[in-house]
Parts: sequence; C-alpha cells; structure tokens
Amino acid sequence: MSLLETIDQPRDLRGLSAAQLERLSEEIRAFLIHHVSRTGGHLGPNLGVVELTIALHRVFDSPQDPMVFDTGHQSYVHKILTGRRDRFPTLKQRHGLSGYPSRTESEHDWVENQHASASLSYADGLAKAIRLRDDDQTVVAVIGDGALTGGMAWEALNNIAAAKDLPVVIVVNDNGRSYTPTVGAIANHLTTLRTDPRYEQVLDLVRRSVTRAPLVGSAAYELLHGVKTGLKDVLAPQGMFADLGMKYVGPIDGHDIGAVERALQQAKNFGGPVLVHVITQKGKGYPAAENNVEDQFHTVGKFDEITGELLAGSKGPSWTDVFGEELVRLGRRDDRLVAITAAMLYPTGLHRFAEAFPERTFDVGIAEQHAVTSAAGLAMGGMHPVFGVYATFLNRAFDQLLLDVAMHRLGVTFVLDRAGVTGNDGASHNGVWDMSLLPIVPGLHLAAPRDATRLREALGRAVSVDDAPTVLRYSKDAVPADIGAIESVNGVDVLAGSVAEPSDVLIVGYGAMVPTALAVGRRLTDQGVAATVVDPVWALPVNPALIDLAASHQLVITVEDNGVVGGCGARLAQEFGTRGLPTPVRNFGVPPAFLEHGSRAEILDEIGLSAQDIARATLEQLLGHARPMTAEDVLQDQQRPSA
Amino acid sequence: MSLLETIDQPRDLRGLSAAQLERLSEEIRAFLIHHVSRTGGHLGPNLGVVELTIALHRVFDSPQDPMVFDTGHQSYVHKILTGRRDRFPTLKQRHGLSGYPSRTESEHDWVENQHASASLSYADGLAKAIRLRDDDQTVVAVIGDGALTGGMAWEALNNIAAAKDLPVVIVVNDNGRSYTPTVGAIANHLTTLRTDPRYEQVLDLVRRSVTRAPLVGSAAYELLHGVKTGLKDVLAPQGMFADLGMKYVGPIDGHDIGAVERALQQAKNFGGPVLVHVITQKGKGYPAAENNVEDQFHTVGKFDEITGELLAGSKGPSWTDVFGEELVRLGRRDDRLVAITAAMLYPTGLHRFAEAFPERTFDVGIAEQHAVTSAAGLAMGGMHPVFGVYATFLNRAFDQLLLDVAMHRLGVTFVLDRAGVTGNDGASHNGVWDMSLLPIVPGLHLAAPRDATRLREALGRAVSVDDAPTVLRYSKDAVPADIGAIESVNGVDVLAGSVAEPSDVLIVGYGAMVPTALAVGRRLTDQGVAATVVDPVWALPVNPALIDLAASHQLVITVEDNGVVGGCGARLAQEFGTRGLPTPVRNFGVPPAFLEHGSRAEILDEIGLSAQDIARATLEQLLGHARPMTAEDVLQDQQRPSA
Repeated sequence: MSLLETIDQPRDLRGLSAAQLERLSEEIRAFLIHHVSRTGGHLGPNLGVVELTIALHRVFDSPQDPMVFDTGHQSYVHKILTGRRDRFPTLKQRHGLSGYPSRTESEHDWVENQHASASLSYADGLAKAIRLRDDDQTVVAVIGDGALTGGMAWEALNNIAAAKDLPVVIVVNDNGRSYTPTVGAIANHLTTLRTDPRYEQVLDLVRRSVTRAPLVGSAAYELLHGVKTGLKDVLAPQGMFADLGMKYVGPIDGHDIGAVERALQQAKNFGGPVLVHVITQKGKGYPAAENNVEDQFHTVGKFDEITGELLAGSKGPSWTDVFGEELVRLGRRDDRLVAITAAMLYPTGLHRFAEAFPERTFDVGIAEQHAVTSAAGLAMGGMHPVFGVYATFLNRAFDQLLLDVAMHRLGVTFVLDRAGVTGNDGASHNGVWDMSLLPIVPGLHLAAPRDATRLREALGRAVSVDDAPTVLRYSKDAVPADIGAIESVNGVDVLAGSVAEPSDVLIVGYGAMVPTALAVGRRLTDQGVAATVVDPVWALPVNPALIDLAASHQLVITVEDNGVVGGCGARLAQEFGTRGLPTPVRNFGVPPAFLEHGSRAEILDEIGLSAQDIARATLEQLLGHARPMTAEDVLQDQQRPSA
Repeated sequence: MSLLETIDQPRDLRGLSAAQLERLSEEIRAFLIHHVSRTGGHLGPNLGVVELTIALHRVFDSPQDPMVFDTGHQSYVHKILTGRRDRFPTLKQRHGLSGYPSRTESEHDWVENQHASASLSYADGLAKAIRLRDDDQTVVAVIGDGALTGGMAWEALNNIAAAKDLPVVIVVNDNGRSYTPTVGAIANHLTTLRTDPRYEQVLDLVRRSVTRAPLVGSAAYELLHGVKTGLKDVLAPQGMFADLGMKYVGPIDGHDIGAVERALQQAKNFGGPVLVHVITQKGKGYPAAENNVEDQFHTVGKFDEITGELLAGSKGPSWTDVFGEELVRLGRRDDRLVAITAAMLYPTGLHRFAEAFPERTFDVGIAEQHAVTSAAGLAMGGMHPVFGVYATFLNRAFDQLLLDVAMHRLGVTFVLDRAGVTGNDGASHNGVWDMSLLPIVPGLHLAAPRDATRLREALGRAVSVDDAPTVLRYSKDAVPADIGAIESVNGVDVLAGSVAEPSDVLIVGYGAMVPTALAVGRRLTDQGVAATVVDPVWALPVNPALIDLAASHQLVITVEDNGVVGGCGARLAQEFGTRGLPTPVRNFGVPPAFLEHGSRAEILDEIGLSAQDIARATLEQLLGHARPMTAEDVLQDQQRPSA
C-alpha cells in the first residue's frame, strides 16, 4: 500500500516523518504525471507546489483556516490531500473533478474563480470577518509571482499591510517564471552573495530560474527578486515589503518541506499579516516538464507519461494561428502597428509578432487595465495598438475600454481569443460576456468572423480604424473551412436561402455559431419552412441592411455563443423596437447562469444551443402557442382582458 | 493691467522674474476664488497646484510635451495658462468651459476622463509612442497621492519603472490629504530630522498636513510618506521607488516655484522615468478652504467670496442622506452589517455608519476592484457588506461583481449613488452604464427606488439576501416626496391608470424617472390615450407579473435614465421575445453617446428624456408610421418584397 493511499484528509499528514513526507511527495508527483497524462490539465504548476501544499496542510487547519489559491490551477495537490484523489481519472470532464477549486466539491475549497490577482482581496475580507467575530483562524492566500503584477493584488497589499492585526499569511509562490531580461543585473548581484552556505540550495534554484528568462519586462519581478539581493538578511523585513510595513519571511526553498513548515509556523504564530516568499520550480521532478523552455507543461492535453510527448491530434490551424500570422503580415506593411499582451504572448499568438517586431511588442504582465489604457496612450501617440486577450479577461478592463479608449475616440484593436463557450476550463474562463458588454460602448465596431478569410478581412479593416475601438472575437476551436457567401447585401453575407423571394425565417448567425445557424436552416427547410441564413459579419454597430432584411420575414432568430442577455441578438431586437418594426425576434445564446465544466459540445448541447434544439424551438414558435402574430392574433389580442 | 492678463499661452510665462511669478500666483488664486465662488467647482485642489502648474508650463513645452492630469479636476490653472481664462464665467455650464480637460477645448488637453489612477498608463503608452517615433518629447503625468492606491497606477508603475529609457516624468502631487492614523509614527520620525535648515520649509508643510489626518487607512500613504523619513537623502532614490528601479526626486515644496522648476528640469534632463514628489497644500492661500477640515473646498457650489460661506439653497434631503441614516438603523439591529467605501466616506453618506460603527467600516482607498472582492471575503466570513460607490465607478469592478461575488453566490449589497445623468461633472461621471452591466450578472437583484420609502424598504430587503448580490441605485438629485401606489400587483406598483380594465399603453418607469413616467401618462391621457403607469420596484430579475401586465396593452414603453442599449427596458423587451409575446416594447433612455456637461435637466431635455418628448414619440408610435402591428400590417408585411 502506498503512503498516498493513507491520506484521506489533511490531518492524516500530521504524524508523518520527514522521510515519509519525502516519499509522499514522490508518490504525489507520480500520481499527477500518471493522471494528467491521461486527462490533460495543469501539470507544471502543480508539480511545483507538492511540498508547499503538504506543508500548508500540516501547519494550517483547513477548512477552518481558509486557504485561497490565486488562479486555482495550482490546487491539484490540495485536492489530492483533501479526499478527492479517487476522482482524478475524471479531471476536467463533464460532471467530473473540476480543474479548479470548487465549493460544491469540498468544504476545503473557498474560492473557485480563475482570474488572477484576486486572492489577496478575498483574504483581506475573510480575515476582517474573523477579526470582527473575534475568532482565531488564520487565512492563507497562495499567489504566484506573476499575479503580483495585477493591480488588484497591489490594492489588497496596500490594505492588508496597513492592518497590523489581520490574521493573514500571504504565500508568494515564486516559481521563477516570467523573469525580465533586466533581471540579469539581479543575477549579477547574487554572485556576490553565494559565499554563505546557508543559502546555497535556494541560490541554486534562483540561478536555474534566472537562466530561463522569458520576455516579460516588469519592475515587480525585479522588485520581488530584488529581495534576493538581501539574502544575507533573511527572516528580516525586506525592501518594499518593509516600506509597506509588511512582515516578510524568506526566501525559502519551496521543495524543503521542513523549511517551508518552519516559515509558515512562524508566520502563523505572528498573528498579523506576514508575507512568506517561497521559491519553487515549475514542473519539478518531471524532466519533460523541467526541460520545456516555453511553458514547462503549464497546461497540457493528453501526453505520453514516459516521454512527455503530447498526444493531441492535429485539428488544423486555430483561430489564434490565423490571427498571429496575419498580424505579422499587416505589421510589415504598417509600422504604426504595435502589439500588447497581458502576460499571454504565446496563448494569444502574439509571439509571432514579437519575433518579427520585438520593439513594437509590449508584454505588460497580468494587468489588463493598464494594457488597455496604455494602448490608448499609444494610439494618442500615433500608433495603432492591437491588444490580444482572452475574451473573459476583457471584463477586467471594461471601464478603460469605455472611457480611456472609446470616449477619446482612439483607434485600438481588441482581439478576443477563447470567446464563447470554452468548456472544460470552468465557469469563469468562458468568454460569454464580451458581446453583452460591447454594445454598451458608444461607437465601437465588433466583428465575429466565421472563418479564416473573414478573420483576415476583419483584422485588416480593424487596424485601419483610427477613431474608435474595434473588437474581433473568435473561439478556442479549430477554424472551420471557409464558408462562402451566396451574395452580400450591403455588407450582410447571405449564406443559405435567398433574399430575392420572401422566406419564413431569417436566421442570423454570429461567428463560431454560423455553422450551427446553417444546420438550423437545413433542418427547417427539411420541415418545409423557408429559411434564410445570414452572417452580419460586423455585429456592431447594427447594420441597417440587416434590419431591412429581417423586416421581410415572419420571424427572426439570432444564434450566438455569448450570454443571451444583452448580447448581439438582443441588440438587434432592440433596434426593431426603436424603429417600431413588428417582426418578432427570438434570441438563442448562453442562458444567464455560470456553466459547469465539460467539453464545448457537451455544454452547447446541454444549454440548448444545438442545431436540433434551436430548430425545434423555432418551429414551436412558428407553429405553436408562441407563434408570431397573425391577423387573428391581433384582433384577439385587442379583445383580451387584462391579465 | 494685471500680469495674468498678459498670459495667453504657456510661452508667455518664460520671461517672468521670480517676483513676477509670485505675483502671478497670487493673481491666479484671486482669479480662482472669484470665479469658482460664482460658478461652483473644484476649488481646493486647484488652489494647491498654482505654483506647480506654472512650473510645469515653464519647464515643459505643452502641447508637444503631453501633460496628463489624473482625475482632471486639478486642471483649472492649466486652463488659465493655456488661453482659456476668459471662459471661466461659463465653468461647468452647458456649452461652457468644462470642469475637466477637454480635447475639443484645447490642444493642450490630452486626456479628459475623470476616473482616478489612469494617468500613468496613458503616460506609459504616450512615451512608448514617442520612443518608437524616435522623437524627443517628454510625457508628464500629474497624479495625487490618493490615486496611487488604485491598482491601475501600480500596474503602470510596474511597467514604467522597468523601461529605463521611457521619457516619462511622474509628478506625485502629495497634498497631505488622506493620511492614515498611523502616520503619527512618521511625524515622530520627522522630529529627529528637523535640524537641517534646508528642509525647514518642506517640513513645516508636512507638519501641518500631518495634523489634519482623516480616516483613510492605507499602507500606500504610509509608504509614500515614509519617504519623508529619508529627508536627509533627498535627490537620491528612496525606499520602494528605489526597489522598483525608479529614479526619485523629492520631496519638494510645491509652493516654491523655483524649487519645483529645478526638480522638474532635472527630471526632464534625465531622459528616463523619474518620479518627482511634490508636497502641496490643498486650499492654499484661501483661509476658508485651508481651515475646512472635512474637504478643504475639494468641490463646492457657489459661495461667498469673502467669507467662504456656501450659498447653495437647501433642496431637502438627498438620497445619500436617506441611505446613510437607514443603514445606521439597520446596523444597530444586525451586527453582521459592515460598510465599505473606496475613499468616498462622506460623498456616499457612509460617514454616519462609520461614526456609529467604526470597527465595521472599511475605507480601502481608491480601489474599487479590491473593495468588491474584499466584500466577497467578508460575506464568506459571515458578514453582510454594503459597498457604497458612485454608479460610474462600478465599471471598474464589473469582473469582481460577476465572478467573485455572483458566481460564489455571496450576499453583498451595492449601493450606487449618482446613478443616471449627473450633468455638469462631465461625460465620465454620468452613472448611465450600471443598468446595462447589471442584467448580465446571473442571479443579481436590482432595485431603483422611486422615493425615500422605497429606498428604505429596498435596503432592508437587500441586506437580508445572503446568496446573491443586490444592487440599489439612485440619483444625485433631492429625493421627491413619496409617490404612493394605487395598488401592487405581485410586487409591481401601479401608480396611475388601472389594471382592472384594458388600456392602450403601459408605461414602466425606473427609479428617478418615475415622475417623468407619470407626467408622460398624464400627457397621453390628455390626448385620449389610456395609459397605465407602473414601477416594477425590483427591476431585476424581471418580475413575471410585469410581463403579464404588459401583455394586455397595445404598446409598452420603458423610461430609465441609463443607457438605452441593454438597459432594464431592453431586458424587459428581450423577455417578451423569449416568450414569443407580440406586444411591442419601446425603450426610452440615454442614447449611446458620451454626454457633454450641463445641468441634468438640460441634458435630459436635449436627449429626448423629457415627458413632452417621450409622450410625443409614444403617440407617433401609436398613431403614425411606426404604429404597432395591425391585421392589415401583418398581411402587407407577408407580401412585401425583400429590401
């Protein structure tokens, strides 16, 4: 029987010896590699926090002591140690184990969202509640060095550090990723400190980290790692944290359970806010991950457990690929084009642009607000910035898009990747809010291209708009084969049916849902209903040609994989109301709820966004109790008594 | 002829002697007091930056060197020096001089929005553009110490400090407001430094500032002012800024033009990012402002120039007053209630709660993101937080409301003050976005109370909801007298007309627009149109009773002073579409545009939100070309050829 099999709850860790803890760590690593190779998931980050998580659960008393994991993908080990080991074969699958903390899964999970830099604010609130209740728990927040670049984390630090009696322990999990090129100076400083044998082990880790410096340029990293220049003064307050009035312990070798435990215990006993700086290695213990320079198996699909070779079959080029390549092409023609990313150079495809035009590429760290307003400044200065970002993260910069860009009538292009239902990354990673936020912004242009050709066209047009924000959005999926238009009516592409003769239903498909709209059209045609399928190409502002088209149909349906509330379909329907048009509009989209993880297809099916369900609902509306108004209805309606 | 009359552009400042500059400063102060006493406006902040602004315009070459003012209310002196002196009698009036920078007013104004902490990001972008173009301008950002608590400012500092060659000068205008109680320790430290005559003048300012410590508790203030502990080392990098790799000059007496000029010149010559720390005194030179402990005439209505006595007539209790008092009453009954403000304790009316329950009140600084997620933590910890905030600033924390509160099903009450058209504070202070953002949030409850009784009832209900966010919104206006309901139909208040017999038009009024809705009803009735006027009381989720009521009318109109796009009226209309109801819905609200400043009444009139305009448009829709569908229309419509 393995040691791991004896750990069903955190208290089972308490009696283990140092040697047993080391063996347990090895077993957990093997467990992680075994399972994640079969399900996919976040491997590198979790291999890095094995010892740290064990130490946390030995020192603190979860769930009484709340543990908050920033960007919860580093919580696999926590899940293993809190009774969810057996569920790992179902990781990230529909109704299976979530890839993030989940409050329905376990009382040990307090916070489940996955947007970075929020953990310290949660911890601040939880600790204030504990203090008001006069309880004696301690709140632990585990935050990566990368997430410290987010403004929220600074806002929270500013408050936590000032409240001397708040029972908060902040663990900075510094895995040495996202070092800046300028960090070379720090590495030089370190050389002078390497005489003290006490820190040899930590320094070794630091040295290895420093040699893997990726692109991100950021003073916060330098600041954090600048702390290492003071290695001689460990266990004393350091640099900026001292200025903030924050107690500091570190740096600690995060793979030495004993050292981490001692630091955490010291922090817990202190009673006020303490920052514990732990140095870990992403991918630790799995050579395939350790040696992966790009992201150290940050998140992977299925892979060969022995070789680390990824098994994912090629699905053809992604939207990200098409965008990344096209932007380079446009960049060669127009030296006003600059690219901005918030710590996601590779996932957004901007690394191609960065390779071609390093001086015109800016990685601002996890800092969406700054990214957008800095883009506004670049546009004022005569550049045309293109900000590549996941659709869900645009929520973080709505105010900046609205006021700093749109109100100032600046030409900034936003490219929203992972728009729509993304599926197994969990509720907060779905990009289902942007098409509801964007109609609110005066003057904004929005395109949801349906294929690679339309994406290239839209991008070319977007970067030529210099007096308003332009947004493109596309999904995580592979790009479908081009979907040609039968004709274009003042910019609206007709994809099926005909506008030359009247039909019953006009189906408006947005972006990735165009194939579904076409399938709905086929099903309706099979049922004898004449259907016209169109793609507005530019969803915002609403094209008057679309309204003219719609007016000649009995019913208009819209299909988008964004929240149905206030989405582009709703915007179209509202335009009908404003013009007093009688044609009813029925919107299909994501219901107003937080979606459980699962595959995109599973979720779309479950929420009624399949061609079958939409066609059925449309037929019901045409034929059933909710049919569009007829002459008889009008007369009946006027005679009907009030409800 | 006064000196001031000779200054029509910044270059007119260049030839003046030190004595002339001093005289000019006095003239500008007199000018400010004279004009603002007649128009109202931001007086205190501008009295504090007279010498600083003169120095800025002598050292830098505006508009080639872009000057960005954070929260632009400190730009009056800049306006005076850039050719807009003569327009001050029209300050903040419709078509008059804006109270903020305005790009249509002057090429010297680069950035015009008024949400705090954004200036450094703009400066970062502008400076990057300058560097890419290989130009030799310098960007100047002027930011108050208070705005440094905002996460955006930190995100920007993190980037600017790392870019050694960016031509940015950051001027921290430290006016000594918002000191923390703990700053007493700093004052003690200072005592030991007071032997050096070089700093006597600065120290004197610091001493005076320290004695006026308001409530805000924040490590950033301590940090910033901790810099003063290093007074002996002026002109050398200090504390945290040094850790960030940021050059630092200061602290400088901001009322010594020569000293400020020398520091700015030094910063400009450096060529890379430099932070210049300038100490100023809010309200400087006007005893009535200097001695006003609460806000030093931060922003005032008209006042007596000689005595400083405010002339504004009493308009009766404000919404803010009613809320502030009721929350104290509720707080006595329920010790789980806690209050949160983002540096707006007085303007939101939460100071009453703070006086009654200081330990249950948290001022987090200008940090809306943290405020919301910290509230989430407090709710997880068993408290019920009430976050009082201006409606426009909710934009800054949409993501946190959506994910950190709503997705976690936490009971947090948001009280949005200054909702709707606020008028003369300018475009970005209008609270016209919240009712479009809030329908997107699953599970959220929203009330827009129409009078004081409804506000008290809604607040009582809000703080009893512990599994979802609840939002109340109200305007800046005085509260109207109570508007009684004829009857309540499953929660929908009927205010005029009757639901017992069919009527032609159902008028749905939200919050502050209920009186307008009633006036529209009267006008329609006068024209022989039967109208029913209702207040849904709770706008979200949509009350099914409202839909039942609406179905028995020929036309539904909705009236809200929020953006018409995606607002509560649109949400109601969409619900009709979902249910296949044929009754047309026409939404009246704020058009999708940025509103120029003016009085609320002027703006509402101009955008067609007067009772007269709404009644006319409604009649047109009922009778004219945009009338609701009739039997004939249906037949015609089906025969109509496509557009």
